[in-house]
Amino acid sequence: MKKNILTMFAILGAMILIGVFYTPLPAQTSQPPISSQSQTCIGCHTNVTPGIVADWQASRHAQTTVGDALKATGAAKRISSDNIPDNLKGYAVGCAECHTLNAAAHKDNFAHMGNQVNVVVSSNDCKTCHGLEVAQYAPSKKAHAYGNLTSNAVYSALVDTVLAGKEVKDGKLVSLKATDAAKADACLACHGTVIAVNGLKKVTTKIGEQQFPDLSGWPNLGVGRVNPDGSLGACTPCHPRHSFSIEVARKPYSCGQCHLKPDVPAYDVYEASAHAIIANAKTKEFNWTAVPWKSGTDFTAPTCAACHNALIADPQGQVIVQRTHDFGSRLWVRLFGLIYSHPQPKSGDTSILKNKDGLPLPAAFTGELATAGLIDKQEQDTRRAEMGKVCSACHSTNWASNHFIKIDAANVETDLMTLASTQLILKAWSNGLADNKNPFDESIEQKWIRQWLFYSNSIRYSSAMSGQDYAAFENGWWNLNETLQDMQGWIDLRSKK
Amino acid sequence: MKKNILTMFAILGAMILIGVFYTPLPAQTSQPPISSQSQTCIGCHTNVTPGIVADWQASRHAQTTVGDALKATGAAKRISSDNIPDNLKGYAVGCAECHTLNAAAHKDNFAHMGNQVNVVVSSNDCKTCHGLEVAQYAPSKKAHAYGNLTSNAVYSALVDTVLAGKEVKDGKLVSLKATDAAKADACLACHGTVIAVNGLKKVTTKIGEQQFPDLSGWPNLGVGRVNPDGSLGACTPCHPRHSFSIEVARKPYSCGQCHLKPDVPAYDVYEASAHAIIANAKTKEFNWTAVPWKSGTDFTAPTCAACHNALIADPQGQVIVQRTHDFGSRLWVRLFGLIYSHPQPKSGDTSILKNKDGLPLPAAFTGELATAGLIDKQEQDTRRAEMGKVCSACHSTNWASNHFIKIDAANVETDLMTLASTQLILKAWSNGLADNKNPFDESIEQKWIRQWLFYSNSIRYSSAMSGQDYAAFENGWWNLNETLQDMQGWIDLRSKK
Amino acid sequence: MKKNILTMFAILGAMILIGVFYTPLPAQTSQPPISSQSQTCIGCHTNVTPGIVADWQASRHAQTTVGDALKATGAAKRISSDNIPDNLKGYAVGCAECHTLNAAAHKDNFAHMGNQVNVVVSSNDCKTCHGLEVAQYAPSKKAHAYGNLTSNAVYSALVDTVLAGKEVKDGKLVSLKATDAAKADACLACHGTVIAVNGLKKVTTKIGEQQFPDLSGWPNLGVGRVNPDGSLGACTPCHPRHSFSIEVARKPYSCGQCHLKPDVPAYDVYEASAHAIIANAKTKEFNWTAVPWKSGTDFTAPTCAACHNALIADPQGQVIVQRTHDFGSRLWVRLFGLIYSHPQPKSGDTSILKNKDGLPLPAAFTGELATAGLIDKQEQDTRRAEMGKVCSACHSTNWASNHFIKIDAANVETDLMTLASTQLILKAWSNGLADNKNPFDESIEQKWIRQWLFYSNSIRYSSAMSGQDYAAFENGWWNLNETLQDMQGWIDLRSKK
Repeated sequence: MKKNILTMFAILGAMILIGVFYTPLPAQTSQPPISSQSQTCIGCHTNVTPGIVADWQASRHAQTTVGDALKATGAAKRISSDNIPDNLKGYAVGCAECHTLNAAAHKDNFAHMGNQVNVVVSSNDCKTCHGLEVAQYAPSKKAHAYGNLTSNAVYSALVDTVLAGKEVKDGKLVSLKATDAAKADACLACHGTVIAVNGLKKVTTKIGEQQFPDLSGWPNLGVGRVNPDGSLGACTPCHPRHSFSIEVARKPYSCGQCHLKPDVPAYDVYEASAHAIIANAKTKEFNWTAVPWKSGTDFTAPTCAACHNALIADPQGQVIVQRTHDFGSRLWVRLFGLIYSHPQPKSGDTSILKNKDGLPLPAAFTGELATAGLIDKQEQDTRRAEMGKVCSACHSTNWASNHFIKIDAANVETDLMTLASTQLILKAWSNGLADNKNPFDESIEQKWIRQWLFYSNSIRYSSAMSGQDYAAFENGWWNLNETLQDMQGWIDLRSKK
Repeated sequence: MKKNILTMFAILGAMILIGVFYTPLPAQTSQPPISSQSQTCIGCHTNVTPGIVADWQASRHAQTTVGDALKATGAAKRISSDNIPDNLKGYAVGCAECHTLNAAAHKDNFAHMGNQVNVVVSSNDCKTCHGLEVAQYAPSKKAHAYGNLTSNAVYSALVDTVLAGKEVKDGKLVSLKATDAAKADACLACHGTVIAVNGLKKVTTKIGEQQFPDLSGWPNLGVGRVNPDGSLGACTPCHPRHSFSIEVARKPYSCGQCHLKPDVPAYDVYEASAHAIIANAKTKEFNWTAVPWKSGTDFTAPTCAACHNALIADPQGQVIVQRTHDFGSRLWVRLFGLIYSHPQPKSGDTSILKNKDGLPLPAAFTGELATAGLIDKQEQDTRRAEMGKVCSACHSTNWASNHFIKIDAANVETDLMTLASTQLILKAWSNGLADNKNPFDESIEQKWIRQWLFYSNSIRYSSAMSGQDYAAFENGWWNLNETLQDMQGWIDLRSKK
Repeated sequence: MKKNILTMFAILGAMILIGVFYTPLPAQTSQPPISSQSQTCIGCHTNVTPGIVADWQASRHAQTTVGDALKATGAAKRISSDNIPDNLKGYAVGCAECHTLNAAAHKDNFAHMGNQVNVVVSSNDCKTCHGLEVAQYAPSKKAHAYGNLTSNAVYSALVDTVLAGKEVKDGKLVSLKATDAAKADACLACHGTVIAVNGLKKVTTKIGEQQFPDLSGWPNLGVGRVNPDGSLGACTPCHPRHSFSIEVARKPYSCGQCHLKPDVPAYDVYEASAHAIIANAKTKEFNWTAVPWKSGTDFTAPTCAACHNALIADPQGQVIVQRTHDFGSRLWVRLFGLIYSHPQPKSGDTSILKNKDGLPLPAAFTGELATAGLIDKQEQDTRRAEMGKVCSACHSTNWASNHFIKIDAANVETDLMTLASTQLILKAWSNGLADNKNPFDESIEQKWIRQWLFYSNSIRYSSAMSGQDYAAFENGWWNLNETLQDMQGWIDLRSKK
């Protein structure tokens, strides 16, 4: 009873604040109309979360109506959906346009200042305007990143082992269960959490006590986030709120949030590459927002986005490669060794793979590929040719061909090193020096993991993107050989007893 | 006698050079007057150290008089002292204005070309105009960074052990005393040296032989530098000479000089965060010099300074949080584990802490907090709310609240891992496998140090700033568990004998 | 027969494409004439490799004729050769101007669309206009980087060991021969490959099948690349194609391709330095292309290039130091320990060094210098003074002098640590715990290598450039002492048996 009164006062206070502080948006002729619902949001949030509002005001979403954006044609068109609801077309893409979509599906929908608002905007909501992008993303490994870890018995055992707390009992280490908090902070920070709704909770805000959905697994910016509407994937890791800028997505920093060493050293390798030295040095000369992105005039060296997903054209605007939001679709081989390099999986859901030993892996521990789930030679060739088109904007076919051959060699060699490491671990298991019940929790097993999860990957990424020291001394060949020697030493020391 | 004649010739030569090369500053109407004393400095130094002069000329110090700067009001005011000496008010803040202040206190004051000049400008000198900032800084941990290492028996033992040279005698390692040079290059490069004056020495310069103070512990840019006037702290690590730019201080690079992995991975974690990808991508769109710094319009993602010390306002100029130069004052918990996470210490002088075992540490090796020296729950809540205000410019209260709960969990979990590691080291000590006389110099002790000084810290910083891989594989959970296993293995191997 | 017809169709197709798509360059009055030969190249390559053409069009090479460039005088002059062939003077420096030079010497010269074209532009080709730069570069360590690895029995043993693949036979590791591919991807990616020509091969390009030279060791961007004309060295690692921008070369990213941790952590250390925080924060205010480069006005903090090779002047244009493309010529000591710090070698060909044990090293394993091949005290002093001039643009002589003394101390101390580590390895060898036949392939030897190749280097670079954490915890003193302890532990554990 008293609480209800307090809440009423809080809302009343908020209303007064709106009256006192709300600065109407300046009447600029170039500013598109804002829906009345979004104007209500802005009224309060200009004071409550001013940074969001100002960030949005400078964004493309705020500076055009959906209707005007639909008039763009050809490669310059930003909206890919055909059936945009008419009620959206006349306004800028404001708060309400995104945060009230598909309310029925949103378990995080709640009554807020007279509106029904979703806390989380999901990939399914973005699909309203950006249908093609979401359709490309949905079947990809990124969209399945949560399940690919948690629905895979092998990988989830790895997660549980790496993140397991420990106690010492009777002088011995005892493993605890990895907590949801540790998972959310580590593996699932990139892979995505499940955002669950556990009723409502009261929160004391700047303008009094209010009720909000009580969410677990949130905040989270994982690419495979399971949203409260059941859809998979977040767009904001690469297009962060509330500017949703294509410039941010095209710069390598966004990819570097998750694709960094030691396990996926793509960002580190890129930063040491000849491509990066040009892109970093000339960043202010690049046109980071042009669509299509013209090789040689808009940019003179690729970033991650240029090679892996952007719509690239020549300076005359002729398309070289189409945009894709399936980031594996220009890749024929998966450098990320699990535990060997392998052809890209056919499905973005990799938990359905099955190797010869029945494990959900693209290869057996001894290297045999789970061919049925991996793309075939023809598809590999198609993708290799697609990536080659990107290279060929600035490199001769001969150059690109030799470069790709070099990558092939790096894969073969690092796979052999993984095999040698595996043969040692198999020996340790068969000799009883280690126990394969959990293949990830003993010292020699941890050395083995380093071989395929850190060092082989570094060498392969380095070969693919020319980050030389990551092939040599920084988690590269040096470490592969040093660790192999350590594994042998570990076995020898214990075998002699 | 002959030396005196030489010196005279040198000075004479310098005077001639001034006559020959001195280009008077261009008579710009917008340029404020420069004091005659500073004009003398500039006359020579335009030739002797031209880079300094030109850098200063482009600075705010050169482009306004103190008197004009005093006219600013409210949040835009840059000068916080009330009692500025009148003789400073009519001029730009030139060489002499800073390098001749408080001469009597400066042991590094010396006769130089007819002036009495201080080599080092101290925090106490900056206080002349920037009194509030220095007053905030003076009681902080940063100002005490030298003593916090050297007056603390435990930490100075760690320093002495880490930096100890080694000889091999009779086939055995013998530890030498850590040298002042090694300390100045490593720990004290960030913490600060004592700058001592050992008389004068002759130096052959471009314009002949001259006498300068013979300084030890110099050059140094440590935040807790003990200046030749006895004051604590240098302002130049973050506001580097001679532009003293607020832009430099606001960009994360300045913090990254010292706050980087493996021990304090704040910069590395930040760079992998969603905040950084926006700040890095949009750096050219930010207004890096506006005072106050308006969230959403001047910047759309925080840097270190935004969260930890800057004066932040909303786009209408309403202050969200006041500026502070006590960088811990918005922090309730100290993530930097010594050896456990703990409430921030009450005093910036942490050498006065005393744990249950009488050691000057915020916690016992077994985790019990030295509560008397640490801020209480109420102060923790106040600071947590203060930091929450910064978050709330762009995030809902609910969002920030959940984020803070996540940090709490990371602290609890990493503290448990530190405890488990400590229980192993206690076992090794009690079993005679290692010797706790120096708790930092044996292999198993080094593994233990890694746990709390490198890996637990990484996970906590990652949780606080969302740099995910630093919680997972890059000095994170992976390393915590691997090293714990190594410690157990080290003990097992030696116990069986 | 059929293939020839196909080729003809391909060429015919290409011709048609040229007709259809070739957009003549806009008739700008400021655009210099392009030779007819280069116009032919551009005709096709605007479509085939549009990125290259556009990149070149924005470059200095495209925007001036050689004749006009020759009119510049003094420090601003970019062309240093005297005898430029007359036929080059009237045109922009286009495709043909570089790719057809010295054809007789180029084993990679081939018939291409009616021209005789070299695939690779060599340092000897660049010498046509940039003679002084190439003359400075040619005798340097960089130019000899390939031979310095491969013609040195000790270093090539290290390369072969680090990059050796492994098999497990009968439960034991067996070393394979390091492959050319692994070498090209790792060590030789920076040091340079030999680009060999193995006849012609057919390549299916965008415009049909064509014949190109079949090159091995290519692509490669190593500084000591052995070019198909026999000349040594590539200019493109620092002046990347096809803009050849001085801005790119002056920014630290270019150096960071190869000079990064753990072995040569120059870039990492620089990035953590006070110099870098200014250069990074103020990058947009710097004039990155001015020649000469004026300290204090064009830049207010040095990058790698500023200290090590650029032509630096004061704001009035008075030269402080001349440009050099021998990057060691301002260095008196070589911090890069092999295996101790040592005076710079006299010759860029370091494979001719001979230490007291007859090995091609600047020092013996026990530290005695191979003095005959190293610069003497006088030359050291000359170079130290030269570097001092760069410092003195912004620092007092006294400051710089103390800084240099600090570097001396770091060298002495880290050399003592290397000596202690060497004494342990000598003990292991003499006790039969390890075998010095290959001094690089066993676990304890790998620990020893870390000491001098990673950790001592880090401390020295940190001392020289003030990157403090690289002296302390990040591959610094912490690691030196930890690894020394590990070496002792390794020996103890095996000695007790």
